[in-house]
Amino acid sequence: MILQSKIQNFDEPLYLESGRVFSNFKLVYETYGELNPDKSNVIVICHALTGSAHAAGLYEGDVKPGWWDGLIGDHKAVDTTKFFVICINILASPFGSTCPLDVDESSGREYRLRFPVVVVSDVVRAQMMLLKRLGIARARAVIGGSLGGMQALCYAIEYPEFADEIFVLASTYATQPWAIAFNKIATEAILRDPNFKGGNYDKNLIAEHGLDGMAVGRMAGHISFLSPSSMQEKFGRNYVETDGLYEINGRFQVDRYLEYNGENFARRFDPLCYLYIAKMMNIFDCTRHYGNLKNACAQIKSRLHLISFKGDVLFPPGLMKEIYDAMSDLGKKDRTSYAQIDSDYGHDAFLVEIEKFDYIIKRILDEF
Amino acid sequence: MILQSKIQNFDEPLYLESGRVFSNFKLVYETYGELNPDKSNVIVICHALTGSAHAAGLYEGDVKPGWWDGLIGDHKAVDTTKFFVICINILASPFGSTCPLDVDESSGREYRLRFPVVVVSDVVRAQMMLLKRLGIARARAVIGGSLGGMQALCYAIEYPEFADEIFVLASTYATQPWAIAFNKIATEAILRDPNFKGGNYDKNLIAEHGLDGMAVGRMAGHISFLSPSSMQEKFGRNYVETDGLYEINGRFQVDRYLEYNGENFARRFDPLCYLYIAKMMNIFDCTRHYGNLKNACAQIKSRLHLISFKGDVLFPPGLMKEIYDAMSDLGKKDRTSYAQIDSDYGHDAFLVEIEKFDYIIKRILDEF
Repeated sequence: MILQSKIQNFDEPLYLESGRVFSNFKLVYETYGELNPDKSNVIVICHALTGSAHAAGLYEGDVKPGWWDGLIGDHKAVDTTKFFVICINILASPFGSTCPLDVDESSGREYRLRFPVVVVSDVVRAQMMLLKRLGIARARAVIGGSLGGMQALCYAIEYPEFADEIFVLASTYATQPWAIAFNKIATEAILRDPNFKGGNYDKNLIAEHGLDGMAVGRMAGHISFLSPSSMQEKFGRNYVETDGLYEINGRFQVDRYLEYNGENFARRFDPLCYLYIAKMMNIFDCTRHYGNLKNACAQIKSRLHLISFKGDVLFPPGLMKEIYDAMSDLGKKDRTSYAQIDSDYGHDAFLVEIEKFDYIIKRILDEF
Repeated sequence: MILQSKIQNFDEPLYLESGRVFSNFKLVYETYGELNPDKSNVIVICHALTGSAHAAGLYEGDVKPGWWDGLIGDHKAVDTTKFFVICINILASPFGSTCPLDVDESSGREYRLRFPVVVVSDVVRAQMMLLKRLGIARARAVIGGSLGGMQALCYAIEYPEFADEIFVLASTYATQPWAIAFNKIATEAILRDPNFKGGNYDKNLIAEHGLDGMAVGRMAGHISFLSPSSMQEKFGRNYVETDGLYEINGRFQVDRYLEYNGENFARRFDPLCYLYIAKMMNIFDCTRHYGNLKNACAQIKSRLHLISFKGDVLFPPGLMKEIYDAMSDLGKKDRTSYAQIDSDYGHDAFLVEIEKFDYIIKRILDEF
């Protein structure tokens, strides 16, 4: 399969929750499978903080497939022989959609730190505009994990007629202070890096070498994606063989893991985009306009499937269970499911242990 | 009580586990209460990463007492009307004992990154040299939390005849990767800060303004000291009133808490010392020279009291329970106690919720 991202430009305004507005914007997306004639086989995939529209398949010449390739493809749980699957890059992401590095046409300058704060509702509203352009009025399912799960929940609450099934994985109805605190480390590490220059860094230089603050911040992120027990299992107290135990720069394997991931990430992800998406995640609270979780859930007409992971310290299972309980209180128990998947991978499980939960998605989608 | 730290210089060598040696060194310490004629009323207090010899009481003109003042004092759990209490500043700490900012007499230059890696056993060996100088051969008890608990455990294993009672709080027999990972964030944030200058920073400038990398690193530390539930209880999703929700720099209360603590800390703690003490903590494994925990515990002759805290994510109760189980397996159950204290403060509880565990210490010390 030779894939290609598509781009859609919008010259109509996008009004943001903050009161600010994009007079124009663009969205990058990918699709897999064929749209059927009555456009009734659509599945929307929502990506997480560092994801992109490239959810599945291989680009020509690539060896690494899209980020949820284990889940999406021919005869996989999200079966592209049956469904037309679309994944849209979120606003503020560095992977193609409108982001802080783009030129603000009203000023002729790149947005940089003048980019407006974008919230999950804005992201979803923009996606709905794209879906409308494509002639898609309804979806069989919306599926997302982490920040993608927040989007899926937002579809459920704000567009109750849109999807038959909503799958929320490793996510929450409102970001808790523990997660906000980890984002704070990244934010501070970025802002305090002298090479960040108040957002006016040389983007080519950063793309080549990576920003140190971004690397450090991402290391903190990687702690939150794992759990104490998964780290114990993965690394124990193993030391890097070539390092001396009594050298001040000697490293444990866990040190090397964080270093490797932090540095790699810093070269492939833009720090301004990170700031804005972390902010989007922090201020996510789907109950804000409804007073409380029960009122928010009262909006939902889709069937709602909650999949949480044991040892997810970023979005602990208890938060997902609260959504289930709210749905139950509303008498919608028969339209809601909750699963806690046993995993040693913590938050990362929704990306790396697909075989542990894909059967849940498959079973429900197979009903079609 | 007018307190004063005392200093003891040693012109004899201190051989370090690494194979390196201090040809001379100094230790700063404080004492509270009176040493009785037969020197049989000694209690040794061991401090944590950022602590100092100033464990209790007030310096003249000060308003803030020593870091464990709630535990130590006249008629408190560690009763200074009965006991002679001593707290010795650890090697590598910026609060008076030999540290990376001191001059290495063999070269005439400050150690900086040439300072040797010091381990917990080295710290305790140096303390034993000081105690010997003071004519103290035995102690009624050794008490320490976190890194202080590691020292207490080291006294128990390596100097089995020294103390009647050993109290280990919020600590572990070997630092686990989760804790090492948090130290990694601090280490990387410090090393990558351009003002760190490979350890050759202007120490007056750093003392005045603080190193940004130290502030960021300490913010990560503060995450590990709390637990998800204690953060939820303390901060929830409360926003800083004067900040706009849709401002990119707007802050939640948890953000402000981390900022405040990180910045304050950066002005009062030296980054090189932090690197060395974090390293000391990382490589602590009291089983290293004994093959396994049971063999290490087989050395212990003191009564051992383990106090852990629910929600301590840095040194979870399970690790302390393993020590208790090893002692039980060795038939020393009647000489060992284990308590898990219910707390919403996580790791910090050993410093801030003294009233929840001081009765355990008091009950045992009252036997004298």
